[in-house]
This record gives sequence, C-alpha cells and structure tokens, in this order.
Amino acid sequence: MDFMTGRHFLQIPGPTNVPDRVLRAIAKPTIDHRGPEFSRLALEVLAGLKQVCKTSGSIVIFPSSGTGAWEAALVNTLSPGDRILMVETGHFATLWHNIAVRFGLDIDFIPTDWRHGADSGVIEEKLSQDRKHKIKAVAIVHNETSTGVTSRIAEIRKAIDQASHPALFLVDTISSLASIDYRHDEWGVDVMVGCSQKGLMLPPGLGINAISAKALAASKTSRLPKSYWEWEPMLSTNKAGFFPYTPSTNLLYGLQESLKMLQEEGLEKVFARHDRHAEATRRAVRAWKLELLCHNSEEYSSSLTAVLMPAGHNADAFRKIVLEKFNMSLGNGLDKVAGKVFRIGHLGNFNDLMLLGTLSGVEMGLGLAGVPHTKGGVMAALEYLAQK
Amino acid sequence: MDFMTGRHFLQIPGPTNVPDRVLRAIAKPTIDHRGPEFSRLALEVLAGLKQVCKTSGSIVIFPSSGTGAWEAALVNTLSPGDRILMVETGHFATLWHNIAVRFGLDIDFIPTDWRHGADSGVIEEKLSQDRKHKIKAVAIVHNETSTGVTSRIAEIRKAIDQASHPALFLVDTISSLASIDYRHDEWGVDVMVGCSQKGLMLPPGLGINAISAKALAASKTSRLPKSYWEWEPMLSTNKAGFFPYTPSTNLLYGLQESLKMLQEEGLEKVFARHDRHAEATRRAVRAWKLELLCHNSEEYSSSLTAVLMPAGHNADAFRKIVLEKFNMSLGNGLDKVAGKVFRIGHLGNFNDLMLLGTLSGVEMGLGLAGVPHTKGGVMAALEYLAQK
Amino acid sequence: MDFMTGRHFLQIPGPTNVPDRVLRAIAKPTIDHRGPEFSRLALEVLAGLKQVCKTSGSIVIFPSSGTGAWEAALVNTLSPGDRILMVETGHFATLWHNIAVRFGLDIDFIPTDWRHGADSGVIEEKLSQDRKHKIKAVAIVHNETSTGVTSRIAEIRKAIDQASHPALFLVDTISSLASIDYRHDEWGVDVMVGCSQKGLMLPPGLGINAISAKALAASKTSRLPKSYWEWEPMLSTNKAGFFPYTPSTNLLYGLQESLKMLQEEGLEKVFARHDRHAEATRRAVRAWKLELLCHNSEEYSSSLTAVLMPAGHNADAFRKIVLEKFNMSLGNGLDKVAGKVFRIGHLGNFNDLMLLGTLSGVEMGLGLAGVPHTKGGVMAALEYLAQK
Amino acid sequence: MDFMTGRHFLQIPGPTNVPDRVLRAIAKPTIDHRGPEFSRLALEVLAGLKQVCKTSGSIVIFPSSGTGAWEAALVNTLSPGDRILMVETGHFATLWHNIAVRFGLDIDFIPTDWRHGADSGVIEEKLSQDRKHKIKAVAIVHNETSTGVTSRIAEIRKAIDQASHPALFLVDTISSLASIDYRHDEWGVDVMVGCSQKGLMLPPGLGINAISAKALAASKTSRLPKSYWEWEPMLSTNKAGFFPYTPSTNLLYGLQESLKMLQEEGLEKVFARHDRHAEATRRAVRAWKLELLCHNSEEYSSSLTAVLMPAGHNADAFRKIVLEKFNMSLGNGLDKVAGKVFRIGHLGNFNDLMLLGTLSGVEMGLGLAGVPHTKGGVMAALEYLAQK
Repeated sequence: MDFMTGRHFLQIPGPTNVPDRVLRAIAKPTIDHRGPEFSRLALEVLAGLKQVCKTSGSIVIFPSSGTGAWEAALVNTLSPGDRILMVETGHFATLWHNIAVRFGLDIDFIPTDWRHGADSGVIEEKLSQDRKHKIKAVAIVHNETSTGVTSRIAEIRKAIDQASHPALFLVDTISSLASIDYRHDEWGVDVMVGCSQKGLMLPPGLGINAISAKALAASKTSRLPKSYWEWEPMLSTNKAGFFPYTPSTNLLYGLQESLKMLQEEGLEKVFARHDRHAEATRRAVRAWKLELLCHNSEEYSSSLTAVLMPAGHNADAFRKIVLEKFNMSLGNGLDKVAGKVFRIGHLGNFNDLMLLGTLSGVEMGLGLAGVPHTKGGVMAALEYLAQK
Repeated sequence: MDFMTGRHFLQIPGPTNVPDRVLRAIAKPTIDHRGPEFSRLALEVLAGLKQVCKTSGSIVIFPSSGTGAWEAALVNTLSPGDRILMVETGHFATLWHNIAVRFGLDIDFIPTDWRHGADSGVIEEKLSQDRKHKIKAVAIVHNETSTGVTSRIAEIRKAIDQASHPALFLVDTISSLASIDYRHDEWGVDVMVGCSQKGLMLPPGLGINAISAKALAASKTSRLPKSYWEWEPMLSTNKAGFFPYTPSTNLLYGLQESLKMLQEEGLEKVFARHDRHAEATRRAVRAWKLELLCHNSEEYSSSLTAVLMPAGHNADAFRKIVLEKFNMSLGNGLDKVAGKVFRIGHLGNFNDLMLLGTLSGVEMGLGLAGVPHTKGGVMAALEYLAQK
Repeated sequence: MDFMTGRHFLQIPGPTNVPDRVLRAIAKPTIDHRGPEFSRLALEVLAGLKQVCKTSGSIVIFPSSGTGAWEAALVNTLSPGDRILMVETGHFATLWHNIAVRFGLDIDFIPTDWRHGADSGVIEEKLSQDRKHKIKAVAIVHNETSTGVTSRIAEIRKAIDQASHPALFLVDTISSLASIDYRHDEWGVDVMVGCSQKGLMLPPGLGINAISAKALAASKTSRLPKSYWEWEPMLSTNKAGFFPYTPSTNLLYGLQESLKMLQEEGLEKVFARHDRHAEATRRAVRAWKLELLCHNSEEYSSSLTAVLMPAGHNADAFRKIVLEKFNMSLGNGLDKVAGKVFRIGHLGNFNDLMLLGTLSGVEMGLGLAGVPHTKGGVMAALEYLAQK
Repeated sequence: MDFMTGRHFLQIPGPTNVPDRVLRAIAKPTIDHRGPEFSRLALEVLAGLKQVCKTSGSIVIFPSSGTGAWEAALVNTLSPGDRILMVETGHFATLWHNIAVRFGLDIDFIPTDWRHGADSGVIEEKLSQDRKHKIKAVAIVHNETSTGVTSRIAEIRKAIDQASHPALFLVDTISSLASIDYRHDEWGVDVMVGCSQKGLMLPPGLGINAISAKALAASKTSRLPKSYWEWEPMLSTNKAGFFPYTPSTNLLYGLQESLKMLQEEGLEKVFARHDRHAEATRRAVRAWKLELLCHNSEEYSSSLTAVLMPAGHNADAFRKIVLEKFNMSLGNGLDKVAGKVFRIGHLGNFNDLMLLGTLSGVEMGLGLAGVPHTKGGVMAALEYLAQK
C-alpha cells in the first residue's frame, strides 16, 4: 500500500477517532492496582460512568471487549433453560443471540427485516401471552451498529409495563452510550451492556454493565456458570476502588480523561451534536439519491448511517477505493447485508469539518467506484450544518 | 499524600515498569480492526508470541486479564465433572482452583506449605494410581506470583510421562513468560496461560493461551459452556489476522513493540538477566538476615522474591512507609501470608541500577519501620552485580 | 470559549498539523547530547536534511525559530555596511529586511505590490549596473508566507549569472522546504533559510541553514558580530554528531521521524501532493468568486493560498467565526494586508479529506460571516480532486 | 552497543530526566501561536516563571538553548567596548566570557582554580577601584555546571553595594534555577540567564532572561547589534500573550506542566530535596575516599557533584564503562578538567531511589574501571537518606 499522508479518517462506527487527550492519558505509566492512587482512579471512573448511564445503580467494568459485557449480562441473571425474548435487529443482535444459544437459553428470537428497530407492540403481545412468566428477560439492542437503526427503549419499557411482566430488561448500548440519549434508571433497564471504543472515545478493551437492584437480586439465584464475568466480586471490591483481578489500568486512565471531556462538553450537547451530524449525513445520502438502510425516521441512528449500494455494486469494492485513495475507513456490511451496505460512523470525538471531510471521501469514492449517484451530497450536508 | 518526585518504582511482581517505548506504541491512534493494517499487526504479534512461548502450536490473545486466560484454559478443554489435578502452590493456584470449582470440575487440590513448588513425585503417584484415566488434566502454576516459588515444569512433564497418563498438561506462566525460561513444545505443555503485564512489559489487558494440537483436539469434545473464551472462532479468524470480536488494538501495538524489545535483547539474555537480578536480591535478603519464603534453592523465582517479616512486624505497615517515603510499590502478602510477607518484583523492563534503587528502598524502609535486620543488603547485591 | 469537539484544523500556513508519529517521537526521553546515541541521531538528521534541500553542501540546525536562521544567513556572510539586494515580496521579506537594517547593512529593498514574486528582470538590471560589485548578496523569499506568492528561484539564479555578478544568493525556504520543489545545489543558492514547523511537519524550534562552499568561504571574512549563530563551531562539532551548545534534542527526534515520513512518501510525490491541493483550493476560491491575492499563475504557492476579502468585510471577523464555530485556525492578513486577507495553509501532513474539511469550514464561515460569495467552492475542489 | 534494558539513568547535570508528565505535555498537537488558546498558555508560563525566579520584574523566553540567553543578557544591556567583570569559575563561565569577547566587550576575567566560586572580596575591591564606573556589568555564574561549585550571589550583591557601584549584575542560573534557591529581586540581580533542561525538567530548547527595571533601562541605550535576542519586541508582544516570532510552542506546553509540578511540590521543598541529595552524594564520595572538586563547603552545589579521579585514571574511560554496563550517563570533565573529573547530576525530577541507583552505578563502575576507592559510598548515602 502506498504511503498515506495526513490523518486517517476512522469512520467506521467504532472504534472511533480516539482524542489525542485520551491517547496521552493511556500512555501514562501503569501503577499498582492495589495502591491508593489506583483506588482514587477507579472510584472516579465508576462515579463518572453512572452519570453517563444516568443511573444511581451499580456499574461494573470488565477488562474485555463489549462482547464480554453481553455475556456478563446473561450469565449473571439467568439459569440454564431460561426463556428470553430477543429481537433480530441485525448482526449484533444476532451475535448476542448466539451467546444465549451457547449458554443453553431458550430464545424467542423475533425477526425483523434489518431495517427496523424492535417492535414494542410485538413485545407487548408476546409478554402478555406469557401468563406463567416463563420469559425471564427481554434483550434489546438500543442502536444496532450493523444497520444504523435504533430501537425505542422507552417504548419497549412501556410495553413490558403494559403487559405487567416481571421480565428483566437487558439493553445493549454498545454504539449508543455517550452518543444517543440513554436513561438507565428512568427507562427501567436492568442490565446495560456497553463498551469503551464508541461514544466513550477510547480504544477497545473495556466492557461495561450498568445493573439495577432487580438485576442484582436476580444474580443471587442465577445458575449459569461464571467466574470472570461474575458481578459480585467486582461490586464488593469496587467499593474500595479495587478489582477482583487485574484491571485494564491504562484504559481506565483513558476513561478518566474521556469522562472529563464528556463533562466539559455536557452530555446533552454531546447528544445534540450526534443528532445534527446524523441529519447532515442523511441529507447527503438523499442528495446522492442513495437509499438509507433504516426505514423509519423515528429509528434513525445518530451514531452511524448505513447506506445501501445500488444493485450490482459491491460496497466492499467501494470501501477499498475510499481506504486506498482517501485514507478513510468506512464500515462494511455484515452478515445478511455483506457487500450491500456501507456504514458511515459519525460518533465519538467528531466535528463539522471532520464530517464534511468524511462525506467528501464518500462522494469522491462513489465517483471513482462508478457507483451511480447524484452529486451534491457534501453540499447538502454543508448547507444544513451552516444553518443549524 | 505528599507530592512524589522522580520516577515511581513499580516493584510489585506485575504490572511491571512499562518501557516508554511501549507506552508510546500504545498511544498510537486506534485503527479499523477489520482493515489490512490491523491484519499485518495481528499476524506479526501472533508469530512473535510463538517464539516467546517456544511453540509452533497455536496462540490466542484475549482482550482480558490473565484471569480470563485461566478460565479459557479450562472451559475449552474440559467438561462438567471432569477430574483435574491441581497443586495449591499459593494464592494464585488457589484462584485458578476456584475457577475450576465454579465450573463444576472435580479437583484433586494437592496442598503445599506455600514455600515449595509442585511435587512431581506426588503427581506421578496420583497419576499412576489413576488407572481409569479419570484425571483429564494436570494444572500447574509455573511461577507462583504470591510466593516467589517456581515449579519445575520439565520434571512434572516427566512424571506424567512416567505414569503414561494421557491427562492434558495446563501451565500458568503469568509471571514467568518472557522472564523465566519456558518451553511449551519441548515440555509437552498443552495449554499455557499468560498475560501482558509481567515479562511482556505491557499494561494489563491481554490474556494469552498457547495451545497444543492435543488440547485443540480436546476442545472439540469439551462440553463446558463458553462463548467469549472459545478458541475456535479465534483461531479461524486469526488466520487472516482478524478477531471474532473487537480486539484490544492499542495493547497489541504495545505487544508489537515489546516483542521487538525482547528480540533485540535476545530471549536467553532476558532469562539470564532475570536470574542475575533474583540472585542479587536474595543476597540482599540474606545480608539483612531476613528469611526467604521459598525454601528450595531449585525453586527460587527469577521474577520476584517474597520475604518473610520477622514475627510481630506487619509487612503492610512496612510497605506503606516504603510507598510514602520512597515512591516505591512493593507486593503485598496475599491470603495465607497476608501481612507476613512482602514481595519484590524484579521482572520485566529492569536493570542493575533500578534493582539497587529498589533494594535501597527496602533497606531504608526496614529501618524506618523498625524491622529488625542487619544492614548491608544493598552492599551485598551491589558486590554480586559488580562481579557478574 | 465553548468546548471544542473533534480534531482542530490547524490551517494556518505553519505551524502545520504535526503528525502523531512525530509528536510521539518528540515525547521520547531526552538523552545525553554528548553521548554515542545522540551522535548517531545528529548524523542521521543532518544527512537527511541534505536530501530534502537537494544539496551536497553543509547544513546547520539551530535551536531557534526560523527567524534565527534568517539572522544566521546574514551575520555569517556579511560585514557592516555591506550592500544587499532584497525584494519586498510581503511581510516576511520585510521582517528579514528589518534584521538586515538592525545589523547595519545597506539594503536596496525592491518594492512589489505584494501580489507578485521577485522580478528577475529587475534583479538582473540592478546587478548589471553594479559594475563595482558593491552588492554582496541577493536575498529572496522563495515562498512568501504572508501572500501565497512564490518567487522563481531558478530564474533569479539565471539573472545573477546573466549579470555575471559574484553576489551571494540567500533564499528563504521557510514555507517552501519539503512542500515546494527547492534545489539548493542546482539553483546555485549559497544560503538557504529554513525551519521546522512547516513542510517538515514539526513543532517550531529548529532554524536551518544550507550552506554552499562559496558562502562558507565568505564566512571566513565576514565581520558582523556573532556567536550563537556562528556556523564554524557548528560545522566542526557536527562532524562527529555533536553541537557546540545544547541542541534541541527532542525536536531532533521529531526531525528524524519526519525525514523518514518524507522518504516513505517520496519527495517528488510530496511536491505533487502540495501542487494538487493548492490547485483544488484555488478552484474553490474561484467558485466562491473571491479573489486570490497572487496575480500571476506562474507564482501560485503550493503551500498556502491567500484570499482577498470583498471590500467592507474584515478577514479577522470571519476568521474568528471559523475558529469558534468550526474549530479551525486560518492565517490572518499581516501588515499591509491586515484584515484584508485570510490565508489557507494546505502544507505539511495533509490529505484530500483534510483539505475538503478545511474548504468546507471556509465556505460555511463565509456564509455565517455574511461575506458575499457564490456557493460551490467545496464542490469545485472535490470534483478536481476526484479526477486527479 | 548491546541492547540496554530498563530505564536510562540520565545523571549528567542537565539535560535532566524529563518527567513523563512533561513529555506527554510536549506531545500535545501544536496550535496557532496567534490564537487565543496560545495567549492563555503564554501568559500562564510567564507568570509561573516569575514565581520560580522570585521576581516581579520581566521575563523573556527565547526559542533557543541557554547559550542564547547568555548572549541576550549581554547584547541587550551593553555597548561595544564596555568593560565587564567576569569570574572564571569554570568552563561555562569561560564560554560566557567568550561570547563577550566576540561582541567586542572589554573583559576583566578574574581567574580561579576552578574549585572555588567567585570571590566577593575581589569583586568589591575591583569595583571600589573603578572610580569612574567604567565597569558596566558584573557577570557571575551562580552554579558552575562544570565544577559543581556555587558562587554566593547574595554576598556578591553586598560587595557591589559596598562599593556603591552602579554596574549591572548579570547572573547565570542555568543549573541552579528551580534547584538551588535563587532570589532575583531580593538579591538585586539585573539579568538572570536560565534555560529549560535543568531544574525546569524540560528538554533543551528554551532560553530565559529575568530582567530588572534597571536592566530594561540600560537596554534603551545599549548599542550592541541585536535582532533575535532583542528584549523590547518580546516584552511588548508578550503583554497580550504573543511573541514577535514563532515561539517553541510544544516546549511551552512542557513548561506549563513543569511549573505545575514545582508548585505542587513547593519551591522550598524542591530546594531542600536538592540539598539533601547533594549531601548524600558527597557522603558517598567521601566514603569512597575520592576527592570533591569543590573546595569550600559553603560553595557546594546542590544540583551536581564533580568528583576528581585519582591520578593516572581517566574519567572518560570510567564513564564509558558506566554507560555500557549500567545504562547511566555521567557528566564528563570539560576543558581544564577534561578526563580528570566526572560529574554526577542529581537535579531535576529525582528521588532517593534514583539517587541510590545512581550512586550504585558509580560504585560498581569504579570497581570495574579499576579506580582505587573504598567501598561503602552507597551505604553512606543510604544511611544519611534514611535518617533525614
């Protein structure tokens, strides 16, 4: 590959562009994870994450990818054979489902066309019919990273309440946390699944759970085997700022810095910024006369936009050109939409000029790849951004 | 706490002093883990780790602490109720045992006085008596980080062979890998458990397994539930330089750099250096007229030295003084030896002057803490180092 | 000021966006500047700079800004009262002139309209008339950073030759070196004046001279007082890789890395990239129906573009909006063109998407500042870049 | 050279061991030196330096080594032929003298044996005899880096006052500033000469002057030619946080951080720490039965210790062994004491264990180099440090 000048545009929907402040924080010398300095660090980041998750409940941080936090959400709350309601909103919902399968759970996996979020009506119906409360948990992906479609968590909460069903509510916020408004306590979520490398603007390596009192109670009787992912030793040692096994100290330095940045900007401004960039991106897509994968405007993702390639055109061939000519990584289509979709990540540490650079790379790439489109997407985004 | 000047001496037996080369490598911007640049990185570090483990077998790297690699070693090879032989060489062997307990394994946990390594004679006897080959695995900690006692892996291999027993051989090299000679293939180890934050000179956050063909075969029939820790998807995606879920990219940058450093120094020189520093440390301890926890000179650890406090003196009070007065972290006594032992880590990125600074801090701390001792430990170490 | 998200766009014509590779290099621990490791570093960067300057002559590197290298060029070659020919191509030529004034030189300062480069015809005429060779030096700014106008050094060389005049030829390459082709030996330049923070992609702090044999000879008889800037002790100690006083070690680490990057890309490709980005920028300016400060297409700068504001509009008010709304720094108008001009730096570590982000910021800023313009500058640049 | 493990011990008397906090600060992206963020930085570091210099007067910071600040002290205050009193306390006083020679000053250069500081009695006498006040300045090195001998600035001030002489008082604090107490205003110093790479714990690249009102007044009539070093444009642009030419932005980031560190520790504690480490070092030297270069206990340097080699032993051969075997750089003997002296730097970011590591390296090196000495220097230092 030729030498690439200038900054790489990392416009996959995570890992996101890590701010240099965070990179420098991560480069601090590792310290004793059993000493007083570490304790202060741990207590600070645990408190900071509660604010980001909008919860007064418990937080655990695993040295793991988000995939580990998915597993932790299941193995801490459920027992072999437990019934669980999941919705196949896309590739990542499917991967979470696969973990449940591996642990011998009995899954009702509600299909979608991968262009819509979870249907709260269907969920309410399923739960209402479950008179014996065999369903122990409802597990939903808030923002499906493979499709750019969000599910409306508040409405699903209402559906559960409407059905007066005691199921636990598990929500994956992998690509929504710190990008799209998420209200753990207000929405009555029992287990949140998050990670470091998206809205939290860190490299990958931290898996996160936010845990309600109800989930904590469930964990006392859960019989799925666990050790690494077990919440209890985490929560008990975390109280004093320590961990039951060696934590990922340097990523916690980074988390400390990224939490400061989120606080400096203000969480609501962070969400507004993501909404604005997502709308600008969609305006570009529409101007190109390309199709958004997401069908429902109420379910548009503010952290990424998945775009359908015109029939006969391969998204990965296009992405390769964009990478090699313009030093930009775009997200690929995964699983059912492999080759058919490319994804533009516009989350994390981002601004207007980075977005317009990004969209410029897409527009030029479409031309070079011979993908039929109308020019002017960048212009449409620029006009929107200049006004708002 | 007062402001601390100068460099912190991180002399716990891991995390070790991370070289600034490695810290800078970790601070590189995160890249797309599905792109060609990442693929080159992954293939390079996987190949490099093979050399360090002295294996031509398989390597997997988890985004996890070493604790996760312990769990992976068990859940990939064993099935519920399987019998496993473990030796209680100290706190960490006990923690590994606890994981086995949680997964419903049937453990024969051979006790020791925490001052000796695993007894190959006892192991041979146990295996010889196991005519029906109910024992599926022998799990040994190579270098027990809580006691500074090594177990002689080559001899345990011989014991297994002597008993003509087909048990898998699982070895924890958490605090020996890249510090004390370890020969995965030559010693017929089936699963090695390692991590990033000791001899590999990285921050914590990577768990490592080296896997023999026999272990790989066993993984096909293992029935312990697993998902995150499952080797198969790792091995199949690793072939092209990718991972089944988001890897800890920035720590892999660090690993790339630390592998370069090990190669530049030369692995055998790395081992000789650790041996030399350990001997110098023991000479200091003897000069102080303090007692080594390790009883058997054939089992001295080259990566850390655990020192017994004279009766009536608390190791943690001493350690607190050393931290606050001399900006040095020493390892605490864990579990059965809590308060009775302090541990000096002399592994990783280290040299003579760092060691003599370390021992100076211990000698001054002993004085300030009113611990009875004879002066001259630093002198004894210095004389040894100057000659060798 | 509000919190600024995302990467800052540093689009002044230097300091330029320092690559993270270079920033990490600069963060290496400082070493003994009298030791063998330093010597290797110094010899390497001195050799590397020769390639960039296209010279087999001498190079000196001062711990100073480029302003110091201007002074060095004069005080090493001239004597009090010496006559020197300079051309007022803009603000920086004027500053260089001011130094000459302070040192008591007798300057013939040829005026321009700040929209043209040095006129080789006028220079030839002046030199031809100087039968007694009172003029000791001709000093020209290759790329005038305040105006975005280049002077054609090869033609000025021809003019000097045509006049058969023995004057020394001094050339400022502050904002051309490693961005615009410069051929020290081929063009018979005697002293080149350069610095670190432009095309060399470093932070400010290094001043550079390239020196011909003729200049070196002149330095033996030069009588301007000097100490810090004196070449001789530099050149004699540099031979072994050392310096007569403490060098700026950490910036030399950065230089080592940036020279590697220039080599990896290839110097001719670096120049072509700058030409391409400059042309794209001019197309944007024309599409906006704004006026370039540079009048002559043969004198367009490839490292920056200065744009005239429509009458009645203040460039600094516009720049303030761009900084506060879009996190981008643009260059201000200096001296005679203060408030009337803004400058877009497109040199150094740069790429297409960074440029299109930059131009987007300009286009949006023009709108917000109420500056009359036609939309579509970004589009024009994008179309050019996509084709070339 | 063999691969060197562990941290390098940079125990020359500057550049000193740069704290990793400072290195990370220096690695921040360069910003627009004409923008508001830079202005805040500049004003902060200028204010912070005043505290360190204990002055309410003016401070200027040059992008230069300390050598430049020497030159600035002279060219801003004096005129050709001015008489100046200097004391040859060692190599660096001689270098400063050489600059004065180059600028045509008339120097009375009082010799010493390089083992004593400036004699205030002699100075008083010289000044008293100078009835016509031909002497325009007295220039003294506070801490002579080549010998480890300090001159008592307060007493020299008294001598000047005693002689009722109006000469300006110029003081070099290159290796004393932020290490040894220095009181610019109280001691009536007119121009202080400092730099970044010693007590300020930065890489080299900043030259500093602190300037009294009297010196400022003198600068109005000074006739030595100057441009780069001229105070006036610095002081006038500094008022708003800017510079007359491009400043060394990234080193100013480092300065901001190191000033924070000095404030966190407390300046008086910084001085006490240096005193303590110097005394421990001298105890080691005495225990080795080696001779200190400094003769007078009132003139011992707290930032470095110069040690005489026994006759027939070359200091550089010894230093080479220490570098190659123990990864430590010691200072060499310069000029008149070349080969005869080695210098131990114990200034800057330092602590007890770093010092004991340092002294251990010296003690082992003496043995390996076959230098006659008595063992036990490290022990003597350790005992002193443990008590104090």
